Amino acid sequence: MANIWSVFSWRHFLVISLAVNVALISKVVYEGESSRGGQTIRQRGGTLILDDVQKEAHFSAGSSSSSTDEEKAIDDGQRVINVYQGDPTMYERLWQQMGDKTSFVIQGGQSMSYFSDVSNLCWFLEPMLAKQIVRLHKLVGNAVTENRHIVVGTGSSQLYQAVLYALSPPDAAEPMSVVSAAPFYSSYPLMTDYLKSGLYKWAGDACSFNKDSPYIELVTSPNNPDGFSRNSTVKGSRGMLVHDFAYYWPQYTPISSPADHDLMLFTLSKSTGHAGTRIGWALVKDQEVARKMVKFMELNTIGVSKESQLRAAKILEVVSDSREDVDYPGKSVFFEFSHRMMAERWRKLRAAVKQSGIFSLPDFPPGLCSFLGRVFTNQPAFAWVKCEGETEDCEAFLRGHNILARGGKHFGDSPKYVRVSMLDRDENFDHLVQRLSLMSSRQS
Amino acid sequence: MANIWSVFSWRHFLVISLAVNVALISKVVYEGESSRGGQTIRQRGGTLILDDVQKEAHFSAGSSSSSTDEEKAIDDGQRVINVYQGDPTMYERLWQQMGDKTSFVIQGGQSMSYFSDVSNLCWFLEPMLAKQIVRLHKLVGNAVTENRHIVVGTGSSQLYQAVLYALSPPDAAEPMSVVSAAPFYSSYPLMTDYLKSGLYKWAGDACSFNKDSPYIELVTSPNNPDGFSRNSTVKGSRGMLVHDFAYYWPQYTPISSPADHDLMLFTLSKSTGHAGTRIGWALVKDQEVARKMVKFMELNTIGVSKESQLRAAKILEVVSDSREDVDYPGKSVFFEFSHRMMAERWRKLRAAVKQSGIFSLPDFPPGLCSFLGRVFTNQPAFAWVKCEGETEDCEAFLRGHNILARGGKHFGDSPKYVRVSMLDRDENFDHLVQRLSLMSSRQS
Repeated sequence: MANIWSVFSWRHFLVISLAVNVALISKVVYEGESSRGGQTIRQRGGTLILDDVQKEAHFSAGSSSSSTDEEKAIDDGQRVINVYQGDPTMYERLWQQMGDKTSFVIQGGQSMSYFSDVSNLCWFLEPMLAKQIVRLHKLVGNAVTENRHIVVGTGSSQLYQAVLYALSPPDAAEPMSVVSAAPFYSSYPLMTDYLKSGLYKWAGDACSFNKDSPYIELVTSPNNPDGFSRNSTVKGSRGMLVHDFAYYWPQYTPISSPADHDLMLFTLSKSTGHAGTRIGWALVKDQEVARKMVKFMELNTIGVSKESQLRAAKILEVVSDSREDVDYPGKSVFFEFSHRMMAERWRKLRAAVKQSGIFSLPDFPPGLCSFLGRVFTNQPAFAWVKCEGETEDCEAFLRGHNILARGGKHFGDSPKYVRVSMLDRDENFDHLVQRLSLMSSRQS
Repeated sequence: MANIWSVFSWRHFLVISLAVNVALISKVVYEGESSRGGQTIRQRGGTLILDDVQKEAHFSAGSSSSSTDEEKAIDDGQRVINVYQGDPTMYERLWQQMGDKTSFVIQGGQSMSYFSDVSNLCWFLEPMLAKQIVRLHKLVGNAVTENRHIVVGTGSSQLYQAVLYALSPPDAAEPMSVVSAAPFYSSYPLMTDYLKSGLYKWAGDACSFNKDSPYIELVTSPNNPDGFSRNSTVKGSRGMLVHDFAYYWPQYTPISSPADHDLMLFTLSKSTGHAGTRIGWALVKDQEVARKMVKFMELNTIGVSKESQLRAAKILEVVSDSREDVDYPGKSVFFEFSHRMMAERWRKLRAAVKQSGIFSLPDFPPGLCSFLGRVFTNQPAFAWVKCEGETEDCEAFLRGHNILARGGKHFGDSPKYVRVSMLDRDENFDHLVQRLSLMSSRQS
């Protein structure tokens, strides 16, 4: 095992953790490295939205242009910290240090056709990606892949829409109801209704759904935004379940058993951090549903980027290969390392929240992870922060402290909550916890 | 200039042309090379559709598994020749021969974020791709890029849907009408109506549209399927025009002047042949329209594959660089070469059609190409073949001869027509013209 896999053993981790803390008051790793550096919030012309398009939030990369290393280390409260989106840039450092084995190369004349494998129902799925998806699920033990069709998508967002198309009858008298228990992923309502489809329609919180008609229930587990593991909510008998398992990976939650549902969605964005690659996949039990999803993909984008699929295959291959490290027999260095990064971040966040005295965080029950072989509690990709006391609009309160986070109302919940990304770069995250820890009720 | 650019000069082209003909009766270049080889039509479980999803055409790669080189060279009429789709595999050979300068490499830690350039309205557009798109349009002179927003898409199909979303008011009393003059691209009706959107609706042939309400007219020029250069058709004053310029490149048509319309669509698939890369781009004059298109892209797929964009940038860079070849001062070896490939194919097809006596082809007026500096007629990516005489269903007639082509009714026209792809691999194309040339009215 080369590079990072051999460099980062458990024994080295303490050293690294110390180094990160030292970095907070000395050198900042990513300064000037990102294309997003060098801009203050006022200079940014682009509005962006990602999984909440109605929110016209000015983007901040979380680093002020004028700050020096020393200024960055000591938070003055002025720089804007953007944890509004879930951009998983935390993973950049990990992959950057891994060297040439993660490189992907493609020649000018390769993969030019629309087609990848015409013997497969999903004719645009690269066989190498299919192989690595199955291999990784078997290794981690988080999903049953036997007797499933794999449908690849341009991220799981596209697959979500393919699922709605596939599960909604083409000639029903009224659109299919789509529900999810609040707090739900803020993009679900938007992605469901933006084209005013006659096939399906957002019907809100699953807990209050009581129509005696067919429906689709989205079960996100662990859930975005609140991080809890979930089962279906609606008690009706006419529902079709879609399990969004974007976060069912061992850095975020104990893997209790291989998920075995009719329709399961996964994404590269949150499993390995390659959001820009736009690769998601669905494991689909029913052949006709898979066929209709493939038809959606044909009409929507005529398949999925070959380059992204082949690079994703390479990335997943490296993740699976990393289990061979001698320090981690039978495990995976990638997941060990990312799990410990998340654990450390949650430890820091909980300490900051405790120090401030004005916020609270969810408490998760412990569970045994069959993959990592130990007991831990969920350490989600987002923190579902509640403003305690009299503060009613937590998003506005944080904005007053130059922290951009997404308010609870976007998720069908109270504005006393905000969703905070836990996946930003080290520097941004460390500034966040530093600022939160220094806030108190006197400032609100 | 290295490799193909220096290898293929005009003087060498005759030699190559001869070699191709010799290949027809000796060795076949691509045997066993494609993943699509080794299958007969009956063995292919996948149905595929591409730009005509309602047609469940069994796929044939056009090469029989059991045939030897000699059997391939002498067409026995039994192997299935599939020219139903427009898969641009003709270009594979060209790019394969170009060597390392076309290679694209990306490290594991690169381009992981959702974001490419937050200072750009289209925040997911890679700056390098934007630069190469502008550079190529300036070189070829086929489109005005000044004062335009570039919106990148997962192929131009996705951009087409983004345009419908952007141009349709969100709260209109009835869906916006979408029209195009017949024969029109067979996917337009399908891509418009598959989600039963309340925002827009396919309204058929632009020539018969006479409602006094707003509408969107699609102007495809040169047109798919018939290859003619086009202008808008509807005489009403409430229309918004969308120009689909997938084929407005010098291998297909004389470049008369830089197109200067409000909304123009382009795609890598037909310009360089990289269909699997799924990259298209829109040049958009109106900022609000561009902004709404970007919003669609966010909701539909949260942007566009970074890998595809960066590889597309590399490919376009090579195309533009190729003008520096000493044999082609001020021109482009890529376009010179692909133009001559198309010219040779059209010469062969016209000779075969003439010999058969039972088909006809469109005749195109000559035009001066400002880019290549000479006069020629359109040589489209598809041939719009008409069965003369009493044959009413040309698609069924060709199917009886094991040729899969798409019938006229899919394009809103008479079944006496079929659309035949001119962009398949050499071997398949040569078999096609050989078989057509030997067909006669006695067989119908």
